[in-house]
Amino acid sequence: MVGQMKSFLFLFIFLVLSKTVVSARKPSKSQPKPCKNFVLYYHDIMFGVDDVQNATSAAITSPPGLGNFKFGKLVIFDDPMTIDKNFKSEPVARAQGFYFYDMKNDYNAWFAYTLVFNSTQHKGTLNIMGADLMMVKSRDLSVVGGTGDFFMSRGIVTFETDTFEGAKYFRVKMDIKLYDCY
Amino acid sequence: MVGQMKSFLFLFIFLVLSKTVVSARKPSKSQPKPCKNFVLYYHDIMFGVDDVQNATSAAITSPPGLGNFKFGKLVIFDDPMTIDKNFKSEPVARAQGFYFYDMKNDYNAWFAYTLVFNSTQHKGTLNIMGADLMMVKSRDLSVVGGTGDFFMSRGIVTFETDTFEGAKYFRVKMDIKLYDCY
Amino acid sequence: MVGQMKSFLFLFIFLVLSKTVVSARKPSKSQPKPCKNFVLYYHDIMFGVDDVQNATSAAITSPPGLGNFKFGKLVIFDDPMTIDKNFKSEPVARAQGFYFYDMKNDYNAWFAYTLVFNSTQHKGTLNIMGADLMMVKSRDLSVVGGTGDFFMSRGIVTFETDTFEGAKYFRVKMDIKLYDCY
Repeated sequence: MVGQMKSFLFLFIFLVLSKTVVSARKPSKSQPKPCKNFVLYYHDIMFGVDDVQNATSAAITSPPGLGNFKFGKLVIFDDPMTIDKNFKSEPVARAQGFYFYDMKNDYNAWFAYTLVFNSTQHKGTLNIMGADLMMVKSRDLSVVGGTGDFFMSRGIVTFETDTFEGAKYFRVKMDIKLYDCY
Repeated sequence: MVGQMKSFLFLFIFLVLSKTVVSARKPSKSQPKPCKNFVLYYHDIMFGVDDVQNATSAAITSPPGLGNFKFGKLVIFDDPMTIDKNFKSEPVARAQGFYFYDMKNDYNAWFAYTLVFNSTQHKGTLNIMGADLMMVKSRDLSVVGGTGDFFMSRGIVTFETDTFEGAKYFRVKMDIKLYDCY
Repeated sequence: MVGQMKSFLFLFIFLVLSKTVVSARKPSKSQPKPCKNFVLYYHDIMFGVDDVQNATSAAITSPPGLGNFKFGKLVIFDDPMTIDKNFKSEPVARAQGFYFYDMKNDYNAWFAYTLVFNSTQHKGTLNIMGADLMMVKSRDLSVVGGTGDFFMSRGIVTFETDTFEGAKYFRVKMDIKLYDCY
C-alpha cells in the first residue's frame, strides 16, 4: 500500500511539476489561432465637388509634388464596412479615420482608423494602424486596442485590394484576426 | 494514518489540480478592475488670429465641403490636463496630438495623442487613439501604450464632453483606466 | 517510512503551492529585459522644390502662426532606416508615417509610423506612436503592434536626436526594445 502510494506520489509529482512548468510559460504562439476572426469589406467613395450624398471620404491636403503617386495626399473617411462586396449593403460597422499616400515612386499608403460597431450583434470599437503596402497582394496592419465587446483586443488586419476604380472608388477586403480576447 | 494521509492526498490532488487549471488560464476579465484609474480634464483653446498667448491648439486644414459639420478639419494641440474643471489650474499633464472631424451629417471626431506627465508624482507618457463619437454621452478610446511610470500600459479612456463653448473652447472629462500595469 | 513520506509531502505541498502562487501572478516586470533589441538610425531628408531625387519626406501643411516653432507643420515621410549613421548606407527598413510640430514656445513633435522590414533577416512591420519631446535628450515612444516576424510585438522606442542640419536633414537614433515577443 505504502509502495503503491509512493509510486503514485512520484507520478503525481511529475504530473504536477510538468503542468506547473507549462503554466509558468506563456502558451506557445508560433502558430496561433485567432480567438475572433471575421472578414469585412471597406468601401471608400471619394468626395468630388457635387456628390455630398454618396461621398464617404475627402482629401484635405494636396500632394506637394514629391513624385507622381499622390505623396502627401491625406484623406479623412467615415466609410461603410459590409459583409459582402456591395457598397450598398447594410453596413455592419463604420471605419472612421484617415490614410495618406507616402511613396514617391509607387502607390503606397498608411492608415489609422477605428472600426465602430453599433448593431445588435456587436457594440464597441477596434483601433487599427499600420502601413498599407499597396504593391503587395496581402499586407498586415495592427489592431492596437479595442473597447466594448472588443475590450482590450489586439490582433492583425490583413488588407487585400479588391477593386480600384480610378480616383473615385476603391474597396479593400479586411480580414480581422484577434489574438487577445477578454 | 495511511488512510488519513490517503484522503488528505486526494484532497490535495484536487486542490492543486484545480489551482493549476486556474493558473493555466488567464484570470477571467469579464468585469475587470483597473490597476490604475484617474480622471483628468482636457481643455482645448482654439487659435484664432491674435490670441497666441491663450491658444493651445490650431486647425491646420480647412473643411473641403463634405457636409456642414467641419468634416476634414484637422486640429493639432498641446492642451493642458487638470484635475478639476478650471483650465487655469496647474496642469498635471499635457495632451499632445491631434483630432479631426469626420462625419458629414453630425459632429464626430477622431483622436490620437500622448498624455505627457512630468511632475514629482508621475513621469512618463500614455499613448491614446480612437473614435470620439460626440453624439454619445460616454465613449471609449484605447490606451495603446505607455512609457516611464506607465511602462507598457494598456487600457481605456472614457470621454465625456463637459462643456462646449462655440468654436473657441471645449472641455472633455477623460476617465483613464489602465488594465495592464507593470 | 510513513514519517519521511509525510515530511516529504509537506515540503512538496509547500513547494507546489509557492510555485502555483508564482505562476498565478505575471512575472515581475519592474526591471524587464527586452526579448528583442536593436538600434537603427532614421534619416529625414525634407523635400524642397527641385530635389525629388534625394527627398524622403514632405510637409503637407503650413504652420498657422501659433508661435515661432513650426506649430502645425505636418510632414509625411518614407525614410530610410540604417544600422550606421550614413544615410547612404543600404537601408535595413523603411520608416513610413508622419510627424508634426505641436508646441508654441519650443520645438516639439509627435510621431506615428511603421517600420517596414523586407530583407532576408527580417520580414514584417512594427507600428509606433508617441510624443517626441525634442528638448529632452532621450525620450520614449510606444511600439503598439507588429506583424510578420514581429507578430503582436509591443515595446518602447527610445529617440535621441543625432544631428539636426537646418530644415533640410535630421537624423534620430532609435533604440527599439521589444518586451512582448511571440
